[in-house]
Amino acid sequence: MNVTVLGLGSMGTALAGAFLDAGHTATVWNRSAGKDEALVARGAERAATAADAVGASPLVVVCLSDDDAVHHLLGPLTDELRGRTLVNLTSGTPEQARESAAWAASHGIGYLDGAIMSTPPGIGSSAIMLLYSGSSEAFAEHREVLACLGDPVDLGDDAGVASLYDTALLGMMWATLAGWLQGVALTGADGVDARTFTPVALRWTAAVNTFMSTYAPQIDAGVYPGDDATLAVHLGALEHLLHASAARGLDARLPQLLKAPFEAAVAAGHGADSYARLIEGVRAPHPA
Amino acid sequence: MNVTVLGLGSMGTALAGAFLDAGHTATVWNRSAGKDEALVARGAERAATAADAVGASPLVVVCLSDDDAVHHLLGPLTDELRGRTLVNLTSGTPEQARESAAWAASHGIGYLDGAIMSTPPGIGSSAIMLLYSGSSEAFAEHREVLACLGDPVDLGDDAGVASLYDTALLGMMWATLAGWLQGVALTGADGVDARTFTPVALRWTAAVNTFMSTYAPQIDAGVYPGDDATLAVHLGALEHLLHASAARGLDARLPQLLKAPFEAAVAAGHGADSYARLIEGVRAPHPA
Ligand SMILES: NC(=O)c1ccc[n+]([C@@H]2O[C@H](COP(=O)([O-])OP(=O)(O)OC[C@H]3O[C@@H](n4cnc5c(N)ncnc54)[C@H](OP(=O)(O)O)[C@@H]3O)[C@@H](O)[C@H]2O)c1
Ligand SMILES: NC(=O)c1ccc[n+]([C@@H]2O[C@H](COP(=O)([O-])OP(=O)(O)OC[C@H]3O[C@@H](n4cnc5c(N)ncnc54)[C@H](OP(=O)(O)O)[C@@H]3O)[C@@H](O)[C@H]2O)c1
Repeated sequence: MNVTVLGLGSMGTALAGAFLDAGHTATVWNRSAGKDEALVARGAERAATAADAVGASPLVVVCLSDDDAVHHLLGPLTDELRGRTLVNLTSGTPEQARESAAWAASHGIGYLDGAIMSTPPGIGSSAIMLLYSGSSEAFAEHREVLACLGDPVDLGDDAGVASLYDTALLGMMWATLAGWLQGVALTGADGVDARTFTPVALRWTAAVNTFMSTYAPQIDAGVYPGDDATLAVHLGALEHLLHASAARGLDARLPQLLKAPFEAAVAAGHGADSYARLIEGVRAPHPA
Repeated sequence: MNVTVLGLGSMGTALAGAFLDAGHTATVWNRSAGKDEALVARGAERAATAADAVGASPLVVVCLSDDDAVHHLLGPLTDELRGRTLVNLTSGTPEQARESAAWAASHGIGYLDGAIMSTPPGIGSSAIMLLYSGSSEAFAEHREVLACLGDPVDLGDDAGVASLYDTALLGMMWATLAGWLQGVALTGADGVDARTFTPVALRWTAAVNTFMSTYAPQIDAGVYPGDDATLAVHLGALEHLLHASAARGLDARLPQLLKAPFEAAVAAGHGADSYARLIEGVRAPHPA
């Protein structure tokens, strides 16, 4: 099957490469010249224009910097896109995805919004997830070819949901990486290499995962029994993080921000509750 | 072998229970009465005083609220502790651990500082880590009995290192959980249960782990090639997190804090570097 890939940045190049690796033919296009050379050497077809590229395949994958770039590029190509499936792997907000789905529907274009939960080196591995939402017909029809990019996860027919999950998961990633960096800086200040600390950190993430599994049903039930670790016990240990960061001259803004909701909950009389209680502050923020 | 456990809060109770489960005898003591009842019913010996409890075993495990409580309790018991091994599983700072090790050495007490990388329900499983640092003799002598609490990880003879790792790992945990809560609130605002979002989040942590493995050697080398995802690409996606949080009326302080170092690095001309570049801002913070 022929697949078109529009946008050959780091990610688009990896996507096109994975289609080729899986034995599909691929037509590729990029705004600026030259980025298609390695792909063409591996057998991809170079299209002279984006319109030509769209016309070459029933399945068109687009991966540009942002939503504005996608609309700038595809807005004039509705005639070429009609009757084809557009899979938009550009990162965006749920609101942008829902607008794109409405735009596509109004022009007879099958639309799937997707989110790539990997950096380019992971593309092609079934261990990584690509999240999809939008047309269930389009998903059913193209699931198999899309599976060569990574495991396709179907999040249903509200096109905004893949971006919603993407945003939520990236937020988790930035938070985790920021916590890890703080840990690398802390241990590094006492002479521990990042490569020495990190394997212990990676093993620890398995325990942290069990905490999320414990707290998710508490959040859904709105009941937060503190029979494992209470907010008061957490707050005591948070003091150590602030102390240890300050003692080493490190940026303490992350520890301070992390501590604030524990303090507020303990001050509000919830010190004996579990961590899951803190969801309420995220949902109904107090003025800063 | 007989083991003494001082402090029967949530964690001390779990520790004493794990010693009993492994077939050891245990002498237990708690400041306030009543918390030892279930343990005594399972075969533990109740000690009338902390001094009696210390006198009953070559290995004394202490797990109280904080370092002050430990020194308040054990300061007067140096004669009873002499010649025994004290394993301090109370959370504290590296500085507190180093002071306790010096105090123990000056009184002929074998000293191991430990950090429990689990909540009480995990105690007794070899999947969880207990970090130890301090006397290598004490570790070698008691490794086997300590292994019934969880996998004992030896971090060497600087007694402060277990607390240093503990602080760093807990900081990662709070950051990860805060990111997860933000994700739960975001997806929850669009009708997704925490129990529906969380399995996808848990699967995603495997990918995030690979990013830490990628960036650790970059940090050690001080070289940050952005050939997977650049800081500029991250910054674009961070805007979506802020937008989506604001659109749902959620607390946006975490996303704002996470975004700041990306902005600073891009403004300083490092937009084409990898995430690992951000370690420099944590180590040498700019004034807020
Ligand atoms: N890299 C990752 O790890 C990763 C992971 C998940 C998701 N993503 C998402 O994937 C998308 C692409 O990321 P990337 O890493 O590939 O970025 P990139 O390397 O910066 O590539 C950006 C691409 O967008 C094109 N582009 C930008 N504005 C355009 C316009 N107005 N018209 C036509 N083409 C335009 C660029 O074309 P030129 O070559 O002509 O500039 C280039 O092909 C982003 O939404 C990103 O958030 C990336
Ligand atoms: N819970 C967890 O998930 C977890 C995980 C890792 C590490 N830890 C660490 O383990 C330690 C204990 O936590 P926990 O959850 O067991 O807390 P907890 O349930 O609040 O128990 C605190 C214990 O400390 C005792 N205590 C406090 N001040 C004392 C004093 N001045 N003299 C004698 N005893 C005193 C209490 O005795 P009374 O009964 O008389 O008040 C109680 O036995 C903390 O350092 C915590 O950070 C806990």
